[in-house]
Amino acid sequence: MNKKAIDKLLLHPVSWLANSDPNESIAISSRIKLARNLSGLTFPINSSESEQNKVLSITSSIIRKNKILNNVMEFNINSLSDIDRCFLLERHLMSRDFCKEGSGGRCLMINEAESCSIMINEEDHMRTQLIQPGLSLQSIWTVIDEIDNRLSKNISFAYNKTLGYLTSCPTNVGTGMRASVMLNLPGLVLAGHLDAVVRGISKLGIVVRGLYGEGSECVGNLYQVSNQSTLGESELQIIQRLKNIIQQIINHEKNARLKLLETKQNFLQDHIGRAYGVMRYSYILSSKEALNSLSILRMGVDMKMFTLLDIDSINELFISTQPAHLQKYSLKKLTLAERDTLRAKIVREKLQKSS
Amino acid sequence: MNKKAIDKLLLHPVSWLANSDPNESIAISSRIKLARNLSGLTFPINSSESEQNKVLSITSSIIRKNKILNNVMEFNINSLSDIDRCFLLERHLMSRDFCKEGSGGRCLMINEAESCSIMINEEDHMRTQLIQPGLSLQSIWTVIDEIDNRLSKNISFAYNKTLGYLTSCPTNVGTGMRASVMLNLPGLVLAGHLDAVVRGISKLGIVVRGLYGEGSECVGNLYQVSNQSTLGESELQIIQRLKNIIQQIINHEKNARLKLLETKQNFLQDHIGRAYGVMRYSYILSSKEALNSLSILRMGVDMKMFTLLDIDSINELFISTQPAHLQKYSLKKLTLAERDTLRAKIVREKLQKSS
Repeated sequence: MNKKAIDKLLLHPVSWLANSDPNESIAISSRIKLARNLSGLTFPINSSESEQNKVLSITSSIIRKNKILNNVMEFNINSLSDIDRCFLLERHLMSRDFCKEGSGGRCLMINEAESCSIMINEEDHMRTQLIQPGLSLQSIWTVIDEIDNRLSKNISFAYNKTLGYLTSCPTNVGTGMRASVMLNLPGLVLAGHLDAVVRGISKLGIVVRGLYGEGSECVGNLYQVSNQSTLGESELQIIQRLKNIIQQIINHEKNARLKLLETKQNFLQDHIGRAYGVMRYSYILSSKEALNSLSILRMGVDMKMFTLLDIDSINELFISTQPAHLQKYSLKKLTLAERDTLRAKIVREKLQKSS
Repeated sequence: MNKKAIDKLLLHPVSWLANSDPNESIAISSRIKLARNLSGLTFPINSSESEQNKVLSITSSIIRKNKILNNVMEFNINSLSDIDRCFLLERHLMSRDFCKEGSGGRCLMINEAESCSIMINEEDHMRTQLIQPGLSLQSIWTVIDEIDNRLSKNISFAYNKTLGYLTSCPTNVGTGMRASVMLNLPGLVLAGHLDAVVRGISKLGIVVRGLYGEGSECVGNLYQVSNQSTLGESELQIIQRLKNIIQQIINHEKNARLKLLETKQNFLQDHIGRAYGVMRYSYILSSKEALNSLSILRMGVDMKMFTLLDIDSINELFISTQPAHLQKYSLKKLTLAERDTLRAKIVREKLQKSS
């Protein structure tokens, strides 16, 4: 079941990139995660395999019985290959921590549309996540809150009247909510203003991270912006505050782009042109360089300065050129050099077809 | 006269790149220079303007009267703009030293085919040069020796039975001959073997220099290889020895290319592809990057790994993208940034037409 289901995922575009709004392309995708634990059971950071199996058995049956996830796919993490785990990470369906070997109770459940996933026995008993294209935190909240309510009716969550939801890590206590938006900020990077913007934001209780969240490197001008604190405000207040700040970052990015267009049009066109030229004709292409180039081309499309590719093709390449995806396509484990060669080939062929 | 004649040069391809032998493309061009001084007259490094004018008057009339240069063009260096001087340098018709301000007696004479030029009152009274495409030192020697013989019949050159021809700089005494070949060595550079080859050669009394001779930087994998000593051997012996060594370098380059093709084909194709991609789509292109890319593409054509451009187009770009040529085309002085922009534009348009 595992293998077939994963291969099914491979065939369709990731939900959070499909049908993205071309007018709101600086914000690539939005995501809300809720951390929940079952009351009366030891939290996963300290629990035995049998306790985790018990948690899995309870949560899985409730999710299935109540049709929390439409046409649910269930993946036992230990039974997945390294490539498949990395594949799910690349699609932002689970966390980096969940990729590591762990208890047999660790399980990922995904709905058919690939928009909602629940990690069972990650750092907390349940981590429910909803992801959508664009800047859509409020609509995501409406849906995930409804899912959470339906879960709450069947599961008694660890909750304290003063503190709120209890979690393994104190930084998640309260709402247990982490909302984040992935932003494409090549304008700020090229203008050399990104650091100043990041410094300003971090004073406001907002965190800026790389593509794969905590501890991951920032590549391809892609940044995840999320709330630092989960306590002392309601979910909607946190979301509203985050959204306001993200709107400001987006405005900074737009201004940086316009300023570059006004004062350094050649510089901008040169970056866009080189990104395309290298992608179209190279035979060795690293993941980092591909992401960087795609980020620049995405900006080029936004600014109507680049017409050789549409946003859908860029989105497709954004996902299909990632390491595990490449290995899934070729049905085998590839070395770094083999991946860089295959990535270049896929990109070359795609770009030659599109031109 | 000066201006019209220079503009005429602009319209035709440089002689030493036109009709180059596609089977001998590692050796781009060969050149022989002869240093001669008129006996009884102070050498230019120490002579007055009036003495230099006298030298010019004597030599110029002899060159014209005896039709030494076919349809001769004559350029008084002081009357040329900086751009025009640089333009003549880029076409390898005169030396870097000759570009500097100097006595009014400094004059450049060129034949119509642009293959033969005579600098009057450079370091020596006369520096006669013949340049041709490919590895063609022996045929060049036949022609330049004939020119030198015809000059000798009309001019008494400073000559000493023991030392040979006397020159301003002792390093040129004897034959007064400097023979050189411009080589395109991207294979050795990419394989990391160039330094070893250069070290080996320099022990054999052979000098390796950059694109514009003494003191100039090596760019675009282009190297000028020439004889160090001008004394103790006949011209033909020097030429034969130089030719043998150059043939060895060419063989090293060929081996390096084959080895790369055998063991690192992707790496090679990647370099070729990127060179083309950047040239085709960039909007800012430095002289150095253009030369580098053209050098790689030339190798790509040689190896039949690259078919999007022919050798003639590469040769044309090789010359037309140089700083003074760009300024000649645009009929005005350009800043570095303006040149980089114009260079990118010319290259882009050329490559888009060719594809």
